[in-house]
Amino acid sequence: GAHSDACLAGLLTHLQNDSGNASQKLNAKQRLAHGVAWTATLAEGVAAVADWARERSTPPELAAARLAVAEALYQLASGLAMSQVETFRAFELGVEPNPEMARTAAALLGEDAGASLRATLAKHIAAGEWLDDRLDDELDAMRDMIRRFAEDHISPHAHQWHLADALIPDTVVAQLAELGVFGICIPETHGGLGLGKLAMCVVTEELSRAWIAAGSLGTRSEIAGDLIAAAGTDAQKATWLPRLASGAVLPTAVFTEPDTGSDLGSLTARARQGEDGSWTITGAKTWITHASRSDLMTVLARTEPDVAGHRGLSMFLAAKTRGTEDAPFPDAGLTGSEIRVLGYRGMREYDLAFTGFQVGPDALLGGERGQGFRQLMQTFEGARIQTAARAVGVARNAMELGARYATERMQFGKPLATFPRVSDKIAQMAADTLFVRELTYRAARVKDRGDRSDIEAGMAKLLAARVAWANADAAMQIHGGIGYALETPISRVLCDARILSVFEGSAEIQAHVIGRGLLDRITQRNWGAA
Amino acid sequence: GAHSDACLAGLLTHLQNDSGNASQKLNAKQRLAHGVAWTATLAEGVAAVADWARERSTPPELAAARLAVAEALYQLASGLAMSQVETFRAFELGVEPNPEMARTAAALLGEDAGASLRATLAKHIAAGEWLDDRLDDELDAMRDMIRRFAEDHISPHAHQWHLADALIPDTVVAQLAELGVFGICIPETHGGLGLGKLAMCVVTEELSRAWIAAGSLGTRSEIAGDLIAAAGTDAQKATWLPRLASGAVLPTAVFTEPDTGSDLGSLTARARQGEDGSWTITGAKTWITHASRSDLMTVLARTEPDVAGHRGLSMFLAAKTRGTEDAPFPDAGLTGSEIRVLGYRGMREYDLAFTGFQVGPDALLGGERGQGFRQLMQTFEGARIQTAARAVGVARNAMELGARYATERMQFGKPLATFPRVSDKIAQMAADTLFVRELTYRAARVKDRGDRSDIEAGMAKLLAARVAWANADAAMQIHGGIGYALETPISRVLCDARILSVFEGSAEIQAHVIGRGLLDRITQRNWGAA
Ligand SMILES: Cc1cc2nc3c(=O)[nH]c(=O)nc-3n(C[C@H](O)[C@H](O)[C@H](O)COP(=O)(O)OP(=O)(O)OC[C@H]3O[C@@H](n4cnc5c(N)ncnc54)[C@H](O)[C@@H]3O)c2cc1C
Ligand SMILES: Cc1cc2nc3c(=O)[nH]c(=O)nc-3n(C[C@H](O)[C@H](O)[C@H](O)COP(=O)(O)OP(=O)(O)OC[C@H]3O[C@@H](n4cnc5c(N)ncnc54)[C@H](O)[C@@H]3O)c2cc1C
Ligand SMILES: CC(C)(COP(=O)(O)OP(=O)(O)OC[C@H]1O[C@@H](n2cnc3c(N)ncnc32)[C@H](O)[C@@H]1OP(=O)(O)O)[C@@H](O)C(=O)NCCC(=O)NCCS
Ligand SMILES: CC(C)(COP(=O)(O)OP(=O)(O)OC[C@H]1O[C@@H](n2cnc3c(N)ncnc32)[C@H](O)[C@@H]1OP(=O)(O)O)[C@@H](O)C(=O)NCCC(=O)NCCS
Repeated sequence: GAHSDACLAGLLTHLQNDSGNASQKLNAKQRLAHGVAWTATLAEGVAAVADWARERSTPPELAAARLAVAEALYQLASGLAMSQVETFRAFELGVEPNPEMARTAAALLGEDAGASLRATLAKHIAAGEWLDDRLDDELDAMRDMIRRFAEDHISPHAHQWHLADALIPDTVVAQLAELGVFGICIPETHGGLGLGKLAMCVVTEELSRAWIAAGSLGTRSEIAGDLIAAAGTDAQKATWLPRLASGAVLPTAVFTEPDTGSDLGSLTARARQGEDGSWTITGAKTWITHASRSDLMTVLARTEPDVAGHRGLSMFLAAKTRGTEDAPFPDAGLTGSEIRVLGYRGMREYDLAFTGFQVGPDALLGGERGQGFRQLMQTFEGARIQTAARAVGVARNAMELGARYATERMQFGKPLATFPRVSDKIAQMAADTLFVRELTYRAARVKDRGDRSDIEAGMAKLLAARVAWANADAAMQIHGGIGYALETPISRVLCDARILSVFEGSAEIQAHVIGRGLLDRITQRNWGAA
Repeated sequence: GAHSDACLAGLLTHLQNDSGNASQKLNAKQRLAHGVAWTATLAEGVAAVADWARERSTPPELAAARLAVAEALYQLASGLAMSQVETFRAFELGVEPNPEMARTAAALLGEDAGASLRATLAKHIAAGEWLDDRLDDELDAMRDMIRRFAEDHISPHAHQWHLADALIPDTVVAQLAELGVFGICIPETHGGLGLGKLAMCVVTEELSRAWIAAGSLGTRSEIAGDLIAAAGTDAQKATWLPRLASGAVLPTAVFTEPDTGSDLGSLTARARQGEDGSWTITGAKTWITHASRSDLMTVLARTEPDVAGHRGLSMFLAAKTRGTEDAPFPDAGLTGSEIRVLGYRGMREYDLAFTGFQVGPDALLGGERGQGFRQLMQTFEGARIQTAARAVGVARNAMELGARYATERMQFGKPLATFPRVSDKIAQMAADTLFVRELTYRAARVKDRGDRSDIEAGMAKLLAARVAWANADAAMQIHGGIGYALETPISRVLCDARILSVFEGSAEIQAHVIGRGLLDRITQRNWGAA
């Protein structure tokens, strides 16, 4: 906490000496600003794990908390990896790491520098156990139900579906709909479960543990549902929310364009209003997940050609006809082609061309022009928390696959799990997964309180994505050669994990959002003045 | 150097307090022993880069050397990643990092903590330049020739071959043979080029830069050539070396079994000698690269069933018939099936079943039973240096793909390369690639002097594999979404890079070889006594 604040203060000093507007200053000092964002993220995670640990007492749980917190403290004190090729160190900001941090970390690890904590935790995980994830009776029941469903209906098939580049079967989608997965956060008055983001995290985590695609079906419903619930007209709510909640309508999120990904505010797809009030959409979109087998597009397009940047954008609820294998895009004015991908299969990604696609006058979200970007940004808070939960599920799956293989595979006459380099990996994967799980739940709780939560959501998304990737990498290593075979599930999980630092705002964009948000928060937004 | 020695001394103290035999002690303190191995590896790399830098004077080259060395010093002082989930810190060995290291690192980076060094280097790389890699006239000419060949005949097609899971075309193999690629280290008297491992590194690096498979064709010839040159009978040399050198004979390396990968000494495939002196091979092998389209197998099998462990193994030079698409394994007593893989395609991997495969009396390498493992271990020195060179080529390719994309892709109105988080990645990729390139050349020079070089070879292989992976990961991140498309080359390079820490001795096995070797070296092999 104190260290993180010192870094933030250090950054402010750096920026105040610079000239230019806020965004120029931040760009020039991007590495430092992002270093502060990562620092604050680890500090937030330490607080989250400390909260969790307060009520736990079993040796593996205490070991996990100690390992997770100690590792974070060491990274804060001596260097944290913003990527595999960028290690940020606090001295870059002129901040001398507080020696207390390393001392605390050393005390947490004990005399053998954590060796016995790691052994305790690895043994527990290798035995197929996990760390207490109870929340409350309702959420726990929900978790159990989803977990059983995922274990019975998704895990056994996911890898074959992946290899075949198949869509998640309609029957599974229907079963998920039956379980309420598509309406978790939609108000009960509109046919949803009326639960919060924490419930969404629990469900998402369990589904993603089986397959990232299963946990990602709901992302689009989450985005559409949030957009409409927060900004839709009463008619839009009445039309779409119940059908989204029931899964009768599967939505797709149509934002990114070939030339605009991170800089979404600059997009150029156009929506023009005709005399009768209806809209005609033209332009190219790309990377649109589940675009064919869906019924509703949330399309971000420029309605005000004279307004540059994000203020010229509006959001549309554009109904479409669900495609089939033979006719993936049956509607007039819309064509698409599949983009083959490394992982994250099951819904398929598409390039879309809008060539005069028609939507009615009532398609404009909230009936308001020029609000699309801001409406979306609010929604992204939920979507990023949801993405963090996907990452937690993937991270856990990787850890479990690695741990299971390590108990089964013998080498040098012993199970791999008996070698410290293997059991250390298992232990740290578990500790890190706990860390980001608690960070994610914390973000969800902030959002559920109704507070602006882009900082917390960004933190959870940023770090959970890294942990999913690191775990998948480590679990792959535990598998040795066999992990590299397409038929081995960890080879899929590695590919699946890689997307998490790219989409829903890349790692660099999350760090930007967090860093700028923190600066705004401590200075009431006036740090950027030249 | 001094720090590395202190760590080694620290390890020795730890081990001397333990009981058990050498291997039990090392297993119990594996994390520490491997931490020492990584530490020594970074220290060795610092020395190698310092040597290189002595004669360079351009700003980007000095920037690269400073960045590479400073990063290594910081990692030594405050934590180095043995994997994404295992950070070793010197205090674990009771060694207080020498404050001089951090001070030196800070001095190397300058007042802005390296920001302008990174900018200088990234600009140079983004402009398509590289860092001086001249060695001597002969090697430079060779590099140019291979580079041109690779740019003309491999780079333009590699990605399509990968996507199609195609074999490298016979015509390309023939052209590589023409260039002498398969006989670099084979003596001129036997039809080879009679050059050393340094030449092999140069060739391998350039080919792997285009495609890892191109740089890996020679690995098998290298292994077979080294085995035969070092341990073969005169007749074996005369029979095989000229045909290996000319590329008329493509060999395949048949060692790993389903139950024995890292613990190769325990393998169970049997070779039984008949009354007429010929041998019958039975048993299962797996992960055999290029097994179908090859003419000679170097097979490690157990000839002495009563001798447990590696002393019961012998090496065979087993001629086979080259397979075709229709008849991949035409010989009696040998069947095989392809293992589909994430990357490293172009030669294909196979499960093999030996069901009474016959070879003549003259197939036993050197005519010596029970020497196979030791013969192979010597050969692995060269193979691991060769693998390090493959990793250098892959690391460089990733860096270049990332840098090129960063100059072409615009976002927020500017090329990505203008954002520090992007240019920092480019710069560190370049510095790290330099670091492992020089480490690899250093290992090659030791080997070329005729010294035992398993430590140096292991160091080069260990770190170069990590850098290839980190670079591929960072370059993928620079690509954003498009990097995740199967059609984008970086998606292949990421998959290709992942194998390097697994095969030819996994990262953990290299760390073991280095750690134990260092202990042996300082104690003349008596540290293990109980
Ligand atoms: C599998 C997959 C599914 C997707 N699904 C959808 C979907 O359903 N709907 C949808 O609308 N989109 C979707 N996307 C698109 C996704 O949101 C974008 O890929 C993402 O926003 C990044 O944009 P980009 O790919 O254009 O990368 P770019 O914006 O070009 O970024 C490339 C790299 O540069 C970095 N960078 C960019 N700007 C800066 C800066 N100012 N400073 C520092 N670094 C910077 C980025 O962090 C990244 O590392 C999907 C993408 C993928 C790969
Ligand atoms: C694409 C590919 C091509 C290959 N080509 C060939 C080939 O042509 N010929 C051939 O003979 N082989 C080949 N191999 C096999 C390769 O050499 C083995 O995969 C490698 O030696 C590792 O063995 P393994 O896969 O059995 O892993 P394992 O030995 O089971 O190891 C699994 C994991 O446990 C770790 N581990 C093992 N023992 C210990 C220990 N004591 N302490 C700590 N950690 C330990 C390893 O480091 C690894 O992380 C290939 C493999 C692949 C994937
Ligand atoms: C980069 C990025 C953060 C925008 O940065 P920017 O252009 O600097 O925009 P700002 O952060 O200034 O935000 C623009 C507006 O939205 C508002 N806004 C941003 N986040 C908000 C939030 N969480 N809640 C409410 N309003 C928000 C801002 O206040 C600002 O409003 P104003 O201009 O009217 O004052 C954004 O484009 C982004 O998230 N890109 C990634 C795209 C992505 O995630 N794609 C995934 C598709 S699936
Ligand atoms: C793990 C591994 C290092 C062996 O460890 P080990 O069982 O402890 O064996 P040792 O290191 O003790 O070596 C066994 C013998 O070979 C000798 N040896 C090892 N490396 C040697 C070298 N570079 N030069 C000469 N001799 C060597 C040792 O001196 C020892 O001989 P001895 O028993 O007669 O004294 C080895 O099995 C290995 O490298 N595994 C990875 C397999 C691999 O790379 N596969 C790739 C297939 S493509």
